[in-house]
Amino acid sequence: MDAASEPEGLYARERPPGKSLEARLVRRVLSRLGDPPIAFVLAWTGERIVAEGSAPVAQLRFADRATLLGVLSDPRIRFGDAYSAGRIEIEGDLIQLLQVIYRMPPEGHGSFTHRLADWLRRPARNTLSGSRSNVHRHYDLGNEFYSLWLGETMAYTCAYFPTEQASLDEAQVAKMDHVCRKLRLQAGDSVVEAGCGWGTLALHMAGRYGVRVRAFNISRQQIQYARVRAREQGLEDRVEFIEDDYRNISGRYDVFASIGMLEHVGRENYAELGRVVRRSIGPDGRGLIHSIGRNYPAPLHPWIERRIFPGAYAPTLSEMMQIFEPAGLSVLDVENIRLHYALTVREWLARYEAAVAKVRSMFDEFFVRMWRLYLAGSIAGFEAGTLQLFQVLFAPRESNRIPLTREFIYPR
Amino acid sequence: MDAASEPEGLYARERPPGKSLEARLVRRVLSRLGDPPIAFVLAWTGERIVAEGSAPVAQLRFADRATLLGVLSDPRIRFGDAYSAGRIEIEGDLIQLLQVIYRMPPEGHGSFTHRLADWLRRPARNTLSGSRSNVHRHYDLGNEFYSLWLGETMAYTCAYFPTEQASLDEAQVAKMDHVCRKLRLQAGDSVVEAGCGWGTLALHMAGRYGVRVRAFNISRQQIQYARVRAREQGLEDRVEFIEDDYRNISGRYDVFASIGMLEHVGRENYAELGRVVRRSIGPDGRGLIHSIGRNYPAPLHPWIERRIFPGAYAPTLSEMMQIFEPAGLSVLDVENIRLHYALTVREWLARYEAAVAKVRSMFDEFFVRMWRLYLAGSIAGFEAGTLQLFQVLFAPRESNRIPLTREFIYPR
Repeated sequence: MDAASEPEGLYARERPPGKSLEARLVRRVLSRLGDPPIAFVLAWTGERIVAEGSAPVAQLRFADRATLLGVLSDPRIRFGDAYSAGRIEIEGDLIQLLQVIYRMPPEGHGSFTHRLADWLRRPARNTLSGSRSNVHRHYDLGNEFYSLWLGETMAYTCAYFPTEQASLDEAQVAKMDHVCRKLRLQAGDSVVEAGCGWGTLALHMAGRYGVRVRAFNISRQQIQYARVRAREQGLEDRVEFIEDDYRNISGRYDVFASIGMLEHVGRENYAELGRVVRRSIGPDGRGLIHSIGRNYPAPLHPWIERRIFPGAYAPTLSEMMQIFEPAGLSVLDVENIRLHYALTVREWLARYEAAVAKVRSMFDEFFVRMWRLYLAGSIAGFEAGTLQLFQVLFAPRESNRIPLTREFIYPR
Repeated sequence: MDAASEPEGLYARERPPGKSLEARLVRRVLSRLGDPPIAFVLAWTGERIVAEGSAPVAQLRFADRATLLGVLSDPRIRFGDAYSAGRIEIEGDLIQLLQVIYRMPPEGHGSFTHRLADWLRRPARNTLSGSRSNVHRHYDLGNEFYSLWLGETMAYTCAYFPTEQASLDEAQVAKMDHVCRKLRLQAGDSVVEAGCGWGTLALHMAGRYGVRVRAFNISRQQIQYARVRAREQGLEDRVEFIEDDYRNISGRYDVFASIGMLEHVGRENYAELGRVVRRSIGPDGRGLIHSIGRNYPAPLHPWIERRIFPGAYAPTLSEMMQIFEPAGLSVLDVENIRLHYALTVREWLARYEAAVAKVRSMFDEFFVRMWRLYLAGSIAGFEAGTLQLFQVLFAPRESNRIPLTREFIYPR
């Protein structure tokens, strides 16, 4: 039966539930998607559509026909916008719903139209000025906003939970110590950090490990905040915060560290990043890059990339090797800690919801819902395994100043 | 000055040392190579050539002009053959000499002639029959031969030294336990092993961890030896040794393990290996692949590939990802333990030298020297960092039956 051959229009409302054109379209789409456990409610007909035999994890209430048709025609962009605009309400567990969606088979992935659509959605390239613009849009939303939900450390990257019971702040400190142990920091070492956020790791390294740090970031608001913290902690003689691009790093250091910057570097710049790393650490240093990643090459979710992270990309390990292989760097250790990022963002989302009235007063309801969806989607992605978190430890390929085992990372 | 314009021939012998055509040619080559600390001795002129300002780590004594010219024209193949044939004698430390050579900049790497030469040297492809032929040439040299120098475990793969003081046998057992811990083996688990050597790991897993193992290998001599060991250890009901190709693995298992087989798989078969792994462990299993690797794509040393390991290739991490990415497998952990392989082969070489009279009686002097060079070259490669050893732990991408941290690998 062809839906297009059915009469449409005013009569639809008077039909029995589940019989309108839209309802039959939804049913057909759900069937093509393998009957996921999601209920659709069409507010304008009162119909509720559920795939046969499935107990829905959540219910999507569409406010009007235009929203429904928009979402069905371009779900990857329109769903997020419609949710943010309040044209879709989610009844049930948002994170579980998103997990169901992320676990669906990637339909048409790699097709010509899919690739064309990705190309059309391309953001500002990560040139020096493009990066500045892309980073500004996200990280300069205001330090106050981020301080509402990042916890005391103001670390906006995946934490490390020694146990699932650790608090967010404990896990952020544990992450920094995990990174510092992997890097075998010694008092007196010099460290260069690329993409330092609000300065949390740089200050932790200097304060706890007695090293000197030069930390680069192109977000003005973050750098200003970091400098205030350095003064407050009496570390301004040991930590220098530099408002500049990682490509302008100069000098020689014992250690290169970059936590959560690679997502904004752009694949076209991986070889240059490798050269920067290599010249920074010379023949005897070591380094660590920590980044969201993928199991197979795929663009970031286009809605996230458009509304939240312009210019961002989560690489596969194979793509990350384009940093290391041409630059003469040897990978010593890769750890995938994706479940930690799910735990981290669950903590962020809880704090975000607790402060939602404040967020609403700073922005608007669209923003509130947009960021809720982004955070919930991140949890779902890391739990469903569509997103990874890789920590890659490396050294110059000719260096034998490398540890025999990894026991030192796990002291008792 | 053009060497070709000088008169050559009978007069050369009567010149002062260092003045013959060959000596000047050697000097020129050493200079182009950056004056490495290697001395050349030309037996037929009595000349000794050393780069200025360098204290040689070793001295190469060439028996005749033809050998010298052959090595200078095609060093990567001819050096090994000439050494094996006794036309070159090494005075000094063979391993240090090879390290100096391996640390030289890769001259002309990637040039057209280089790539052409690599292509001309291609071995039998790793089809089902090609693999059998390639594996037969190396692993069926005789169990007696390998038992002279592999130690009691008969493990012919990189060991794991908890400390540098561990013995070879201790380190081989530690390697197996390291792998079993990474794989979180539980009593009752089923394991499939691809490329099981003489059965050491399969028997260790069954005997110490109470799992059932099906172990595949296409080397007949190894499989026969492994079956005898299984009977001797009373494990024949728990370990099945199957003389067949990994591509013919069928059935479903909790764990996939492959230690030191990937080197023989061939890049053209990585995607198929991934499919075999994926169908073997289903949505809930886990696996580990352990392989010699590289920091950047390069063929195996052509002499090693021709004389020792036909059809072998050591992949980069990026190339290894061609196994995992298309197959829906997620990399959890990569450990590079190249220094352990240098320690391992040092132990093998010492045992080999202690048994060299026996080796000579089984084969001949050419074989003795060929294998000495191969073992010494392996030590040099792992110490110089031109060879890596990667252990890659993975799980199906949708599996959340993955550990939160790696603490369990390092019990106290």
